[in-house]
Amino acid sequence: MDVHTTVADFQAARRRRSGSLGLVPTMGYLHRGHLALVRLAREENDLLAVSIFVNPAQFGPSEDYEAYPRDMDRDLDLLRRERVDYVFAPGVEEMYPPGHDTWIDPGDLGTRLEGAHRPGHFRGVATVVAKLFNVVAPDRAYFGQKDGQQVAVVRRMVSHLGMGVDIVAVPTVREEDGLALSSRNVYLTPEQREAAPAVFRALLAAERLWSRGERDGDVLRGAVRIVLEETPLIEAVDYVSVAGTPGLAELDRVTGPAMVSVAVRMGRARLIDNLVLDPASLPGSH
Amino acid sequence: MDVHTTVADFQAARRRRSGSLGLVPTMGYLHRGHLALVRLAREENDLLAVSIFVNPAQFGPSEDYEAYPRDMDRDLDLLRRERVDYVFAPGVEEMYPPGHDTWIDPGDLGTRLEGAHRPGHFRGVATVVAKLFNVVAPDRAYFGQKDGQQVAVVRRMVSHLGMGVDIVAVPTVREEDGLALSSRNVYLTPEQREAAPAVFRALLAAERLWSRGERDGDVLRGAVRIVLEETPLIEAVDYVSVAGTPGLAELDRVTGPAMVSVAVRMGRARLIDNLVLDPASLPGSH
Repeated sequence: MDVHTTVADFQAARRRRSGSLGLVPTMGYLHRGHLALVRLAREENDLLAVSIFVNPAQFGPSEDYEAYPRDMDRDLDLLRRERVDYVFAPGVEEMYPPGHDTWIDPGDLGTRLEGAHRPGHFRGVATVVAKLFNVVAPDRAYFGQKDGQQVAVVRRMVSHLGMGVDIVAVPTVREEDGLALSSRNVYLTPEQREAAPAVFRALLAAERLWSRGERDGDVLRGAVRIVLEETPLIEAVDYVSVAGTPGLAELDRVTGPAMVSVAVRMGRARLIDNLVLDPASLPGSH
Repeated sequence: MDVHTTVADFQAARRRRSGSLGLVPTMGYLHRGHLALVRLAREENDLLAVSIFVNPAQFGPSEDYEAYPRDMDRDLDLLRRERVDYVFAPGVEEMYPPGHDTWIDPGDLGTRLEGAHRPGHFRGVATVVAKLFNVVAPDRAYFGQKDGQQVAVVRRMVSHLGMGVDIVAVPTVREEDGLALSSRNVYLTPEQREAAPAVFRALLAAERLWSRGERDGDVLRGAVRIVLEETPLIEAVDYVSVAGTPGLAELDRVTGPAMVSVAVRMGRARLIDNLVLDPASLPGSH
């Protein structure tokens, strides 16, 4: 496994081998969710690159950029075992040299949901993903469905700008009790950790209603809120959304594919999760 | 010469031939300035693509998008004679399908000079150039130095986003009397056309002072203004700039490479022009 910290080194190494290339972009501190991406990418491509870069541009000024957990040695051990070919782990100056001031603006989609609570977040995401795609030139790139809006932003960017990378969304990996895996789960105290699966239960409540035929957006959002509000350790609910995919506009009536998503705050952690409401998954839809 | 109006057709044709590819992006209505780009690109690449696309995203709401001159048949005749391999001439819906809302924001550089007078112009330029680069995947792309700030925006975008395209700036082609060639020169009445070379003379006045050692930005800008203000058919001066390259921040003292540039309005036309002040060009600099 090659580990490269500069664009030039990575590209020189890449040129020495031919074959299809998969990319798994990460911010490191890898968990089983990342490994699910890596394993799928390993199966689907001749060569596999994983990037590790905690991207300052996607953190707000009051967010956890400095505190974001990092453990490069452990990450490299994990990736070696998955037979990764290239790790691209640039420093901040390699990705954003002094004077960097060109940005990808993901438009309205970037201002909704996570974007409304984290202004500039998706501009930072889109910019770093575009740069990684340009530098690494993958055939396919793999993202976790847990960051559902991120998947939507990246897919749209690739389509609108003609980037020619296949975007693969990989189902969310969960703990046994339903909590979606996230590097930020380390911020939870034991009590918070025990209460955190309420987020997934709240999403399931909406999904259950929807699968029984409920199509009213407010009723579905209300079902999510009831579960969240029963959970005292949840200090704030940033949003509860039932939105159409892929544009993520909030829905009055759920008449097609949709995503139910939430963001809540619990102590130092901010937890996000979502479920896709896919009409094709309903009994009798085939 | 292949003429393609869709991304898929162009890319299918491109895949059938190997070799280095040059791209000359244009808005059509070709003149000798464009042909200088085409000829240099023809020499430097195995294969040559010219795009023709009047990009609505770079025109302001009160600008001349509808009126912009177009003559596809004549353009294709000219390009055939230059042994162009591919013409990519997409419709607006091919480049901006309904719902298009992903943009490249060129930061501060895009808000200066032309950007201050044409808000959003360089966002439109950067976005369409990025999309053309992604779709056409050229090794080199050729731009006229006449649009000097555009060259700076594109070079910076390519560097900041790691696009891997060599940007070649080609010296401005002028009429015998010094007027820089532009598709928009057709907007000039005969009287205005006769007066228009004052723009180039004004730039030359600053260059002459600079080559004799004048380094004060205000003095150089003043020399330009004097010539412009002597020309009654110039109705307004949008800006007179002496700015450092490549960032184009206005200079108090000219201590390194710089660009003197102007934009003026004359009837229906808005004329822009520039000269590079290159210290390496001075006598005794070698």
